[in-house]
Amino acid sequence: MKTMERISPKAYRSEGFAGKYMELVRREMIPYQYKVLRDEAENTERSGVFSNFINAGRALRGEKAEPFYGMVFQDSDAAKWIEAAAYSLAANPDSKLMEEADELIDLIAAAQDEDGYLDTRFTISDKEKRWTNLLEAHELYCAGHMMEAACAYYEATGKRKLLDVMEKNAEHIYRRFIEDKAEGYPGHPEIELALMKMYRAAGNPHCLELAKHFIDCRGADPRYYEKEKEKRDWTVWGNNPVDYEYQQSGKPVREQTEAAGHAVRAVYLYTGMADLASETDDKELFAACRRLWESIVNKRMYITGGIGSVVQGEAFSVDYDLPSDTAYSETCAAIGLMFFASRMLENDVNGEYGDVMEQAFYNTVLGGIQLDGKRFFYVNPLESIPGISGKSPTHRHALTTRPGWYACACCPPNASRLISSLGQYAYGEKEKTVFCNLYAAGEVTFSNGMKLRCETEYPYDFNISYSVSGEGVLAVRIPHWSGKCEINKNGAVISPEIKKGYAYIPVSHRDMVMLSLDGTPRYAYPSEKIPALSGKAALCRGPLVYCFEGADNGGDVISLSVDPAEAVRVCEYDEAFLGGTQKLIARGYKREPQNGLYSCAAPKKTPCEIYAVPYSLWGNRGENQMRVWMEIC
Amino acid sequence: MKTMERISPKAYRSEGFAGKYMELVRREMIPYQYKVLRDEAENTERSGVFSNFINAGRALRGEKAEPFYGMVFQDSDAAKWIEAAAYSLAANPDSKLMEEADELIDLIAAAQDEDGYLDTRFTISDKEKRWTNLLEAHELYCAGHMMEAACAYYEATGKRKLLDVMEKNAEHIYRRFIEDKAEGYPGHPEIELALMKMYRAAGNPHCLELAKHFIDCRGADPRYYEKEKEKRDWTVWGNNPVDYEYQQSGKPVREQTEAAGHAVRAVYLYTGMADLASETDDKELFAACRRLWESIVNKRMYITGGIGSVVQGEAFSVDYDLPSDTAYSETCAAIGLMFFASRMLENDVNGEYGDVMEQAFYNTVLGGIQLDGKRFFYVNPLESIPGISGKSPTHRHALTTRPGWYACACCPPNASRLISSLGQYAYGEKEKTVFCNLYAAGEVTFSNGMKLRCETEYPYDFNISYSVSGEGVLAVRIPHWSGKCEINKNGAVISPEIKKGYAYIPVSHRDMVMLSLDGTPRYAYPSEKIPALSGKAALCRGPLVYCFEGADNGGDVISLSVDPAEAVRVCEYDEAFLGGTQKLIARGYKREPQNGLYSCAAPKKTPCEIYAVPYSLWGNRGENQMRVWMEIC
Repeated sequence: MKTMERISPKAYRSEGFAGKYMELVRREMIPYQYKVLRDEAENTERSGVFSNFINAGRALRGEKAEPFYGMVFQDSDAAKWIEAAAYSLAANPDSKLMEEADELIDLIAAAQDEDGYLDTRFTISDKEKRWTNLLEAHELYCAGHMMEAACAYYEATGKRKLLDVMEKNAEHIYRRFIEDKAEGYPGHPEIELALMKMYRAAGNPHCLELAKHFIDCRGADPRYYEKEKEKRDWTVWGNNPVDYEYQQSGKPVREQTEAAGHAVRAVYLYTGMADLASETDDKELFAACRRLWESIVNKRMYITGGIGSVVQGEAFSVDYDLPSDTAYSETCAAIGLMFFASRMLENDVNGEYGDVMEQAFYNTVLGGIQLDGKRFFYVNPLESIPGISGKSPTHRHALTTRPGWYACACCPPNASRLISSLGQYAYGEKEKTVFCNLYAAGEVTFSNGMKLRCETEYPYDFNISYSVSGEGVLAVRIPHWSGKCEINKNGAVISPEIKKGYAYIPVSHRDMVMLSLDGTPRYAYPSEKIPALSGKAALCRGPLVYCFEGADNGGDVISLSVDPAEAVRVCEYDEAFLGGTQKLIARGYKREPQNGLYSCAAPKKTPCEIYAVPYSLWGNRGENQMRVWMEIC
Repeated sequence: MKTMERISPKAYRSEGFAGKYMELVRREMIPYQYKVLRDEAENTERSGVFSNFINAGRALRGEKAEPFYGMVFQDSDAAKWIEAAAYSLAANPDSKLMEEADELIDLIAAAQDEDGYLDTRFTISDKEKRWTNLLEAHELYCAGHMMEAACAYYEATGKRKLLDVMEKNAEHIYRRFIEDKAEGYPGHPEIELALMKMYRAAGNPHCLELAKHFIDCRGADPRYYEKEKEKRDWTVWGNNPVDYEYQQSGKPVREQTEAAGHAVRAVYLYTGMADLASETDDKELFAACRRLWESIVNKRMYITGGIGSVVQGEAFSVDYDLPSDTAYSETCAAIGLMFFASRMLENDVNGEYGDVMEQAFYNTVLGGIQLDGKRFFYVNPLESIPGISGKSPTHRHALTTRPGWYACACCPPNASRLISSLGQYAYGEKEKTVFCNLYAAGEVTFSNGMKLRCETEYPYDFNISYSVSGEGVLAVRIPHWSGKCEINKNGAVISPEIKKGYAYIPVSHRDMVMLSLDGTPRYAYPSEKIPALSGKAALCRGPLVYCFEGADNGGDVISLSVDPAEAVRVCEYDEAFLGGTQKLIARGYKREPQNGLYSCAAPKKTPCEIYAVPYSLWGNRGENQMRVWMEIC
């Protein structure tokens, strides 16, 4: 039974900080990606997405078709774009955008085979290869993304065409894997969480059954991918079918205890598991989710909410292996962690999940995006040193500035759809209770009739006010980092019940609730078990992890150390600086240059002020040194 | 013109610290490797070296031969063993060992083709592949090692058989590359330095000409390996011929300015270059050597004298990329750096070269060897954390304990030959001057008639006394790390001329010279340009870098920090501890365990004593934490 229900994409009208990013998505990212998908964007690699659907339609009609172009999962770019467009349309009606989406949906519908199969890679040609390479071919992954798009577009616009296409596709998959008992499970999990959405949007119980099937049969026969490989004579990338850890297939998911392998695959899988657990009240499955969650947040997560610390396999490493400079910490993995956290909240209203959701969002997810919305980090290191980062063989992936849209463009559209649906993470509801998981300014309308108007300059101010319409309980998360926290109702301090990190405040019509969190800058200290961080500290304020960039510190960050005994000053909010932000000024020391590579003379240190900016904004001023974790002097 | 000449392998009789290691080589490593080469060692992978030579001889005689076994450079194991055996025989006559060596030399001679070609890989079969793959096939590399063995065996025993074989082989190579003008140069440099030895031992000017040829044509046509690859239809490992940096072939060596690529290849090449420069008084070539030397010691060397910081290509990384935990720092590369340093001394008597030679020897070279002489590190990280080291995808190469003899056994026999010829690095001569580069106890006889008897417990005591027979100048290196230094002659303090790190002391028969160096433990501080070492310090004493191991510190090193303001205590020398050593006791702090992965509470620190042992002795007590660079509290 769900402890919290998701709100409709139409329920939230954003303002403030969230509104600014949603606007960036609407104005820049969605239109730009549209051009990319149509191969009309300048200075960008060919995408081929539109033409693939056109050619698949032609192939089905027996017309001459050009060959498929792009990665095997190219179709998913269309899906993520439609999903982002849908969320944007839910908040901001836009007839041109809707026309563009409808046109693409028409192409998609025309590319669906009679039996419901939909994947341009194996429709334009190679029809005989369908379903023969679950390990690599991403058919179920692409189906999953398109199902998510279908649900979002239906919920946002009421238009059923894509939902019908994907319900037909789900039935095709159901026949194959349930009725015809075909073996196998997705190489890249995604469809599990998507089928849960389909189950709710289309009300089709086959979708629930199929989600449960894929989750339960995963790893039950770890040798499935080997057997599959023996039967086929082709490969996509030559993936090793016995790399069980990479694809989370070594044992049944209910028995898995460590978050391992490809980080995006892992958290997408766990998201589906947690959704199924709450939907079907499956305590055993939730316990497995909880173990995996603890493995992540207690041993394998960066302070920025980034996960997957090694480039090899874009994967989780062993416990406490969290290097800053060679971090992989993919933007998509942080997005997936937010998915997972949101589904955990639906099993158990616990502030810990909201805390992590916020941590990933404000730091790694937003850090993936250049201020102009046109360049993106896939890899989000916590330290960047020009000359080494991006250059050393161990740091090649750790670029010093955001590159433009990639051909393999998983992260930018994933960020678009996450940001444009932020309301669904920020708010939730359950009967008479409305939940505020994140502090997102704007208006929310709940299905129980309540409305909230949230006003705040968060994360730069720590007063959050809620004006209530209707009657019920307002449940607000109290973040773990807030040293003190005051709650006012209609001007009077109150002491509401606080349970697992949420304050439960009974409210009536026209009540004004004000939450005052502690925005004092604070240093965070790593577990002594993380060797890479011994003796270091990171500067934080609210949900924001700060970083130290060369641009603010005379070009040099690596010879600086911080003194946590000294108070940190908060600068005025500056609208003109890095798109609007607040610098922090710490005190510490600057080491003077040494003679030689190693010297017997202790370096001289001069006290100095050290400037910090939010981590999410690093790399917006060209290549320069950046460090999150600083030596303590 | 050489500023310093090498002494004969027979000139030095070792005692003390060096003697102990030379004894370990003689008693354990040489006999053990002999069994390995004959495939008679237990629990060791097949070597096939003896049988390869036997089978090559059979093939040449038209008898039935078994296939070649092992790596393409398998023959070089025989060469390194003979070279080590030769040096050992020079100091310790041993008729059984000489018989074993003679028997192997007979097999080698019988495996040489009529035209002088010698390489079992392309003699047992595949004769048509000879000289078609200089990039990978290691024919010139194996020839180089065998030439070094031939010179050493001749110098140690006066026996010419192997020297004659290798002179014939050198003539074969001379005909091919000089007379017949075949294109190309060695994929793995080695023969250059070996030809310089051959030139001196056999007095054959073709060897000098050939060394100069290979050095000067290297990189003159960077596309050579590509053209070679186009002509052949086979490969060893599929090496990329355009990876110019890896094989130092991107431009002529005289134009190279950065130490780059495979570290062993690089320093072997530079060694040959420096030897040629001093032999032929080639100032331009020496200037290139000096630039490459500075690139290493000023920007790309670990404090342990280790080089090659990345596992990818076992190679140098970019400047200042010197991570401790993922270091490659191959034992063979440190040995090669000693070669290079010794040849630089022959161009320019400068204490800097001796300092680095000593740094590499006492730390990385000796650190490669288990105390029992039976297990070896190839990779010498400066930090080892069980659970991460050897396990994380980025740390797989960084094993926590020394494994046994590998099939690809480059490092153990390389260490054997280096240690058993240590006298040639420790001492040098030039006309009436004798040089003490390292402080190696024992007796040395110089070709100018002078004799020295050196008594010292160095590196655990810092008084070094020399008893002189004969008359001349005693030139003793004064290490850069010695804060103060006193020199006594016959009981009176003297102030001799000190020039570029060497004290020049005129001596007469029966003079007693005593050098008193400063053995006060000291902290070393890294350049602020090394990001991985910000805010850290390493504890050193004399030439020894110390490390902190869990075994001496309650299992936990990563929560310790040192306080360099506190004096470090030196423990009594303990013969029973780690084969005889001295612990150091530093003062610092232990951080108490934190709650959670990241915490807002500053960790509590308790003052404590922290025990350190020489880095070269780490990993002799099973898997445990080890750290060289410690946080400063």
